[in-house]
Amino acid sequence: MRSTMQDTPLTVPHFLHRSAAYFPDRHIVTTTPSGTRRSTYGDWATRVGRLAGALDELGVGAGSSVGYYGWNTASQLEVYFATVCTGRVFHSINARLPADHVGYTIGHAEDEVIFVQKSLLDGLGAVIEKGHNRVKQVVVVSDPDDDSPVVDRTLDYEAVLSAASPVGLSVADERLPASICYSGGTTGLPKAVVYSHRALYLHTMSLLQTDNVGISESDVVLPLVPMAHANGWGLPQAAVAAGATLVLPGRDLSGPKIAELIASEAVSVSAAVPTVWTRVLPELAGKDTKAVRELCSGGSAASARLMDLAREVTGRPLLQVWGMTETGAFAALARERSKDAAGRAAAVRASQGFPVAGIDMRVVDPDTRTPVPRDGTTIGELQCHGPSVIASYHDDARSPEAFTVDGWLRTGDMAVVDSEGCLRLVDRTKDVIKSGGEWVSSIDLEHALLAHPAIASAAVFGVPSEEWGERPVACVVPHPGMALDSDEVLRHLSGRVAKFWVPDRVLILGALPTTAVGKIDKKALRTTFEKTDT
Amino acid sequence: MRSTMQDTPLTVPHFLHRSAAYFPDRHIVTTTPSGTRRSTYGDWATRVGRLAGALDELGVGAGSSVGYYGWNTASQLEVYFATVCTGRVFHSINARLPADHVGYTIGHAEDEVIFVQKSLLDGLGAVIEKGHNRVKQVVVVSDPDDDSPVVDRTLDYEAVLSAASPVGLSVADERLPASICYSGGTTGLPKAVVYSHRALYLHTMSLLQTDNVGISESDVVLPLVPMAHANGWGLPQAAVAAGATLVLPGRDLSGPKIAELIASEAVSVSAAVPTVWTRVLPELAGKDTKAVRELCSGGSAASARLMDLAREVTGRPLLQVWGMTETGAFAALARERSKDAAGRAAAVRASQGFPVAGIDMRVVDPDTRTPVPRDGTTIGELQCHGPSVIASYHDDARSPEAFTVDGWLRTGDMAVVDSEGCLRLVDRTKDVIKSGGEWVSSIDLEHALLAHPAIASAAVFGVPSEEWGERPVACVVPHPGMALDSDEVLRHLSGRVAKFWVPDRVLILGALPTTAVGKIDKKALRTTFEKTDT
Repeated sequence: MRSTMQDTPLTVPHFLHRSAAYFPDRHIVTTTPSGTRRSTYGDWATRVGRLAGALDELGVGAGSSVGYYGWNTASQLEVYFATVCTGRVFHSINARLPADHVGYTIGHAEDEVIFVQKSLLDGLGAVIEKGHNRVKQVVVVSDPDDDSPVVDRTLDYEAVLSAASPVGLSVADERLPASICYSGGTTGLPKAVVYSHRALYLHTMSLLQTDNVGISESDVVLPLVPMAHANGWGLPQAAVAAGATLVLPGRDLSGPKIAELIASEAVSVSAAVPTVWTRVLPELAGKDTKAVRELCSGGSAASARLMDLAREVTGRPLLQVWGMTETGAFAALARERSKDAAGRAAAVRASQGFPVAGIDMRVVDPDTRTPVPRDGTTIGELQCHGPSVIASYHDDARSPEAFTVDGWLRTGDMAVVDSEGCLRLVDRTKDVIKSGGEWVSSIDLEHALLAHPAIASAAVFGVPSEEWGERPVACVVPHPGMALDSDEVLRHLSGRVAKFWVPDRVLILGALPTTAVGKIDKKALRTTFEKTDT
Repeated sequence: MRSTMQDTPLTVPHFLHRSAAYFPDRHIVTTTPSGTRRSTYGDWATRVGRLAGALDELGVGAGSSVGYYGWNTASQLEVYFATVCTGRVFHSINARLPADHVGYTIGHAEDEVIFVQKSLLDGLGAVIEKGHNRVKQVVVVSDPDDDSPVVDRTLDYEAVLSAASPVGLSVADERLPASICYSGGTTGLPKAVVYSHRALYLHTMSLLQTDNVGISESDVVLPLVPMAHANGWGLPQAAVAAGATLVLPGRDLSGPKIAELIASEAVSVSAAVPTVWTRVLPELAGKDTKAVRELCSGGSAASARLMDLAREVTGRPLLQVWGMTETGAFAALARERSKDAAGRAAAVRASQGFPVAGIDMRVVDPDTRTPVPRDGTTIGELQCHGPSVIASYHDDARSPEAFTVDGWLRTGDMAVVDSEGCLRLVDRTKDVIKSGGEWVSSIDLEHALLAHPAIASAAVFGVPSEEWGERPVACVVPHPGMALDSDEVLRHLSGRVAKFWVPDRVLILGALPTTAVGKIDKKALRTTFEKTDT
């Protein structure tokens, strides 16, 4: 007996056609320096069709890559869908990478045409000239309030669009590549993940589920996460699929600006890294946040202070999401179960929670692949499996080490699992500190540090010790205007953590260095430490 | 460039493993004649593993079919998952089909083993003896309060289970058949739909979406729809996937019993045909229904009276769902958009609404396949496309006529679409009435009849007319204890509908004949009418 079902591919164009057919009047809002610009899914879909025609005219072949260098705007959403929905590969270039890494990704992704926001053109031009790449055309997207003339040897986005004829949007094979994203490591060059239509489709469908973030047509979605990070953690595409109103924040992600946007557009769902929430949440105090339903935080752990602040200013707890470029963004969610008591709910909210439907996770001994007991204390490596998880990196010799022999992704995170299956990350594999044969969790120690009222951010890492093998060292940043010294920090820790966890040294810094994806750069900190370790 | 994603198949075992790993203590409740029986997803998953071992021992090969003849119970859920999660094909035999059709489906599905509830064994035995089939073993599931001895030449379910050793549950290919369901036509033998793992997986994931019915771990799900109808419209499997509490109603679907169950188990989501809601809703009056979130009604249109009653007794509107065995059950949902005013909301609730994400629908001229204008009045044929829609019937010569040359399913429903894309069915293709070249909507006419306070149910069909080609005729059933005559009915209609819509004759009947899937059997009514047409 054979199945009698249609062999319909799971591809991204379905989402565009759905919003155009059933939500043509819903808004796409883009913040500009002087206000906001509004369009609708109906008009947007028409422009995407024309832009797809323009890609034909620019000679971008099937399967070729198109780059976008800029902020989260309606233009980027247009280029994304015009590229992906015609069987080409979209590359949102990460503007926060160092210039040589930007150049590397443009060459590695084999971008043939790059769309760039005008204010970023100068920087990009230099990178393209210097690097080995296949870029044959640059199309400049003018900033909304800028009517300066077209730059030499580039094309103007609106001119290209209006000259083009629309073409149909469809993709026949769900396993075709749709988008390439670079995973920002703290060491070495970025590694490339190539999402298939199937992976993006399934991740999007998952974001619409109630026990995931549950994007609905009734939502107003504000993706603060840049498109270069796993396509804005998939939220822009999920908003299109659901017919939700989409608010794109443009360039200015300052606290007051974003807080104002959340209030004025009645945003219900947003997502950002803790660093962004740290500057946005205080500005929400006293503003109208009654539309807020889920503020998602991911990329690194949110502090207890940040969790409390979210509740204070919005009445809703922050929703921690765990995921990587390599897993699709939303792989686990820290939402309590409906029957959990308050204490348990708080514990779950502070953890990484439970895998979403469609993702398999295991925490295992990395050598034997035996699952650790569900005791909440035994540490193992978190590994992932599923249709939106990668099997390899694209064109990268470092690929094999990230996967097990049975095909699971080694996340590089060390975790514990409690009796209900709730995950808690305790360390990055490479940040693991072993002192006298005992484990020191840098993450738990950072949380203990962040519980001090004067500490704004904290990072813990291990340094070699002749006596103990390794010893923890802490770097902390005080809140603006607050005084702090090492002794005070050590006093704060004693009694809160095991004695052997108390760091040998505490450095007070003005800021912590971050990587291109907004995570604390411990490698840079180690260098700083070595310089000061006299 | 190639995608770097894992090639993980979309298969049903994922849902079982998820509930066993993350919701092992959630309940599966089955109603028995004397009360309820409770198990948990953890215990259930263990029994499913053992039952899968038993299927090996019974000699059921990979890809072979296993039948179940009985009610919605924990046992049927066990047999379903043990069969499907080992690459075999599950067949829930429709107990409401006439005996010769039951025999036909058992032979056509090539069931090798049939599990049967003891009270149904006598009937089944006769059917198996008489028919051409491959049944080599019958396993009897005792009714919970029955400890009578094992019947000759059959096996006892619990004995089979306890003797078996557990085996692993996994399926390597998402395109393998998982379940066969028969679509009950009003004419001819039932037609077979063979669902793939992929189709069931995607339909299940869709049911978890907020703008679909949004099954969550916080839900208590009561599938009143029998498993034989598109696997209970997919709700049991969606409950497993989400980790929701699952309440299985067993044999007794009487109004008082189900109303009591909804109150005592704090049911939040349920689904049934209007006939069932007609007897359940009145019994809910005065009961605790505060847990109720969505009562879904499908299979045929709910009357305005039934919609009002749902609001009265539960405070929540009925959610009309449209789908067929051929489309996966939940293909369209009649839920208003978040910004709709009350009038518009009521109109949407009374329609078939909008397709769920993942399903494509079009309403077209059946000859040219040109979409009808979105004017809410031009009638066309509703056609469906998507990964959970069928491409053919299994082993059936009648297959081709149900599909267009470009591969869409012809649903056999005539519909209109309004300017926002909202669907409204106006007729079954085969029920279409054309009087003097003008269309008469039997569905709209039935709705007009149901607006009369004394009319409980109504059916309209066309009869040949020399002068007009066809003329409508109506059959109506009065509410118990209410008087009604044809003149009163005709008076009621005049002014409410176009003059040429007013039926030539009105028959008052005690009940309307229904098909095996609970729909009004217009073919039988035509026969009745011909006999009375003297």
